Amino acid sequence: MNGRPAPVTVIGLGLMGSALAGALLDRGHPTTVWNRTPRKAKPLADRGARVAATPQDAVAASGLVLACVLDYDALRTVLDPVAEAGGLAGKSLVNLTSGAPEQAVELAAWAASHGADYLDGGIMTTPPGVGDPRMMFLYSGSEAVFETHRPALAALGDPLFLGAEPGLASLYDSALLGLMWATFTGWLHGTALVTSDGTTATDFTRVALRWLNGAVSGFLTTYAPQVDAGHHPGDDATIDVQIAAIDHLIHAAHARGIDNSLPHLLKSTMERASAAGHGSDSYASVIEVLRDGATRP
Amino acid sequence: MNGRPAPVTVIGLGLMGSALAGALLDRGHPTTVWNRTPRKAKPLADRGARVAATPQDAVAASGLVLACVLDYDALRTVLDPVAEAGGLAGKSLVNLTSGAPEQAVELAAWAASHGADYLDGGIMTTPPGVGDPRMMFLYSGSEAVFETHRPALAALGDPLFLGAEPGLASLYDSALLGLMWATFTGWLHGTALVTSDGTTATDFTRVALRWLNGAVSGFLTTYAPQVDAGHHPGDDATIDVQIAAIDHLIHAAHARGIDNSLPHLLKSTMERASAAGHGSDSYASVIEVLRDGATRP
Repeated sequence: MNGRPAPVTVIGLGLMGSALAGALLDRGHPTTVWNRTPRKAKPLADRGARVAATPQDAVAASGLVLACVLDYDALRTVLDPVAEAGGLAGKSLVNLTSGAPEQAVELAAWAASHGADYLDGGIMTTPPGVGDPRMMFLYSGSEAVFETHRPALAALGDPLFLGAEPGLASLYDSALLGLMWATFTGWLHGTALVTSDGTTATDFTRVALRWLNGAVSGFLTTYAPQVDAGHHPGDDATIDVQIAAIDHLIHAAHARGIDNSLPHLLKSTMERASAAGHGSDSYASVIEVLRDGATRP
Repeated sequence: MNGRPAPVTVIGLGLMGSALAGALLDRGHPTTVWNRTPRKAKPLADRGARVAATPQDAVAASGLVLACVLDYDALRTVLDPVAEAGGLAGKSLVNLTSGAPEQAVELAAWAASHGADYLDGGIMTTPPGVGDPRMMFLYSGSEAVFETHRPALAALGDPLFLGAEPGLASLYDSALLGLMWATFTGWLHGTALVTSDGTTATDFTRVALRWLNGAVSGFLTTYAPQVDAGHHPGDDATIDVQIAAIDHLIHAAHARGIDNSLPHLLKSTMERASAAGHGSDSYASVIEVLRDGATRP
């Protein structure tokens, strides 16, 4: 490579795949693209991408192949003929297609059986965020692929290697999206509450962001080692104190005609923790209730 | 005052009231304390606090009176005799007792009828965080009290004035706690997911905090003006796309025996938004479903 941007192939040119190829072109990587419907390659060709006629040609063009298609079935439909013709041997396959951890594990084994090194990835941004060095891209699988191709991966965002288990990136992806949706919904419930009394969402959100990035982040930092230790001392913020406090929220929201499904669920989850003996423990002890999901009716 | 710390009275010496008095003593405020059970005043007396024999004496000692007791009923039990004897006239009463917005409004009127200026407060930390200038204290009601006594309030944490409506601090307090519990529970669900595959909570939380304080905070900043405008363009992250994505989370968590009550609620909330015509809108449009709570069965 001699310091010059390495050639990269991008398979799949939906919104996300096109953003990936665009970010690589922006950083000067010789970029070969392929899409099932060739029309989508036109804007990238105008920016200097080479458009391959077949998946075989596309894979042959670069040592690093990024794939971002609809799902794993679509990916196998595209790559099976390439693999059967021996085209994957010696390639580094980085799969950014959304899927389940188990699918990543299975695909890694399939890739290995065809001589390819496999790295699975999770893109923690939307297409307009691709290329922004603050945006996380999570990877798991072959650390050799990650290290060898780090400059190309860094063109897409901030690459984080999670471990050799191929399913980890997908598992983290799902876990982080779940955290995001919970945070979004809690924020919208609070926003509905304060805006019903005349505050703007913008004013509330300024305070909410300070709260999230300050005190709430501090609690998570305190609670994470409690979870790892399996010991959750409540100190001054016990589950039972918080069960009492959530009634203020439920009452205020009810009085304003706001849907209370989320606070009711949070309260019942805390009550289950308390009933299981965690009333004097910290909120971190709620994980014991969540882990016990299989035993619920 | 002439630049010297002003005298302050603290009524109520539970964990939180004691922390408030301690922070004032640390900053050199002449501090008078009173508690129903005098025993709790001993550690503060050892640090230089003056212990009043009665609520009347306590209120008489300072122009600024901070109250932090169990609830509003307890507060009225303590202050009614003082008010009836004319002892509140000309005082600045800052009430840090937890309660509902309506209780703050009622107490403000009661204080005004006895000649006191009223400021309501919400403490957004636990007792050990009192005195830390990064911790938010929310205030609403008399802006004159807030401005006059800002140095004493700044001894407790970072004081934020929200507006003249006395119930605002309590409303924000509940809204922010709701956001916190939702975030905690989403984080614990994600933590349960990744730790079931061998990752530590500490490792996951490092990534989760980057996610919360980066991309997720960015989304909230984008969505707040959408809520204010009542217009929620979905662009590249629509409700319908997210309904599809949450199934990966539900499936992965179910396979690991983790309780899915929260993701199921989040999915059904998104589905209600989609059914109401917001499938191509952003997550911000979910607020329309929440605001419609009164019309649900």
